[in-house]
Amino acid sequence: MRCLFTIQYLGTRYGGWQAQANAPSVQQVIEAALAKIFSTPVRLHGAGRTDAGVHAHAQRAHADLPFDIPSRGLVLGMNQLLPPDIRITTAAIVADDFHARFNATSKTYEYRIWNAEVADVFAAETHAHVAKKLDVEAMREAAADLIGTHDFRVFTVADPEVASTVRTIESIDVARDADVVRIVVTADGFLRYMVRRIAGSLIEIGRGRLARKVLFEEARWTAPAKGLVLREVHYALTSRPE
Amino acid sequence: MRCLFTIQYLGTRYGGWQAQANAPSVQQVIEAALAKIFSTPVRLHGAGRTDAGVHAHAQRAHADLPFDIPSRGLVLGMNQLLPPDIRITTAAIVADDFHARFNATSKTYEYRIWNAEVADVFAAETHAHVAKKLDVEAMREAAADLIGTHDFRVFTVADPEVASTVRTIESIDVARDADVVRIVVTADGFLRYMVRRIAGSLIEIGRGRLARKVLFEEARWTAPAKGLVLREVHYALTSRPE
Repeated sequence: MRCLFTIQYLGTRYGGWQAQANAPSVQQVIEAALAKIFSTPVRLHGAGRTDAGVHAHAQRAHADLPFDIPSRGLVLGMNQLLPPDIRITTAAIVADDFHARFNATSKTYEYRIWNAEVADVFAAETHAHVAKKLDVEAMREAAADLIGTHDFRVFTVADPEVASTVRTIESIDVARDADVVRIVVTADGFLRYMVRRIAGSLIEIGRGRLARKVLFEEARWTAPAKGLVLREVHYALTSRPE
Repeated sequence: MRCLFTIQYLGTRYGGWQAQANAPSVQQVIEAALAKIFSTPVRLHGAGRTDAGVHAHAQRAHADLPFDIPSRGLVLGMNQLLPPDIRITTAAIVADDFHARFNATSKTYEYRIWNAEVADVFAAETHAHVAKKLDVEAMREAAADLIGTHDFRVFTVADPEVASTVRTIESIDVARDADVVRIVVTADGFLRYMVRRIAGSLIEIGRGRLARKVLFEEARWTAPAKGLVLREVHYALTSRPE
């Protein structure tokens, strides 16, 4: 029985979705909880990796469960075993050929900036801090240039496993809500560091230190991981669970 | 020169405003930063104590500074020295007889509850978690009984240093915003555990486990410290800085 989970996590304490450094990975911690419940190893397949320190509002992952179990009980049981910075929010039965990663049509990431001279203690773990007032209008105008299909090579690092650095950004929005500036990007796929480098460049533009016209030429700054949240993984209606 | 500070902190790592346990106190950490800046011990006088794990949005404290220093530079300098979970948000010169505690006319505390079956990882440090849907209307009706001058003895612990357990609650509001239930209380003074015990009783009422009419008879539950935030310390207009 294949089950698709929605997972929320605060990435602060973890080495990413998959293990990267000496810190435990979110995937490992959840697999350990599943192994306890089912008394056998259960492999979790994530919709995508998030880097060390990156958070998720609704990461998705599927697993083949060795036996049937009511989903509400499974969610409650897993949350009992998981640390408070990882929560399972939903569990749903899906078709046996459904794949959390390959069936995903797009993803939405949010980058959060605390934009005030003094950082906020309640936002410190989930927002980058930029003291200088950002020109959100300039950031929004520059962001519009990123929409569509482009080669995002400058916004990532060379990776022999990645065949193409061309991706399609469906939408990108930059908005201010009091002291918080949010960059919300939806694309068919994301390259490593892509959102953090886009955020880094847009912040430089908002500071008046980078011109809109050189946006695709140089990515000077990878914005800190703690400001990044995987908000949603989108699936086509035909393959959508529930 | 007497200076009044506004201080924000995440109480999670601290043993309270003043040292209680083996954990450092917020006051100690700020006094250490002041001692570094002024190269001499500087004593900080808080508007009130907050317990271990309790947060502050705007705690107030005054100190006599050994020499004049521009307040913006002082704020920036202190924040450079302080850990990210403590921030100075303002510093203002006040009269030499102004006292952060004795001049305070009232305080406002907020108690936050994450009220959904699954707790939220982003709210885990600053909200209590109650899985059962709370009857906010019943909580609000019961809360109205607390407004005014009453003996709040059942909502505190015996303390020989406290002459009277009579306090005046100016306002108390209970409201839901999606999955968050907030209890906001303003009073001329607060006894130890008072807000957490009021919150505990109101939660019991919201769960249908305690009747409104016995509210003053028994405080069964001290709600967890992590849900409590000191929102504001109020001063009379005549003594208000700036």
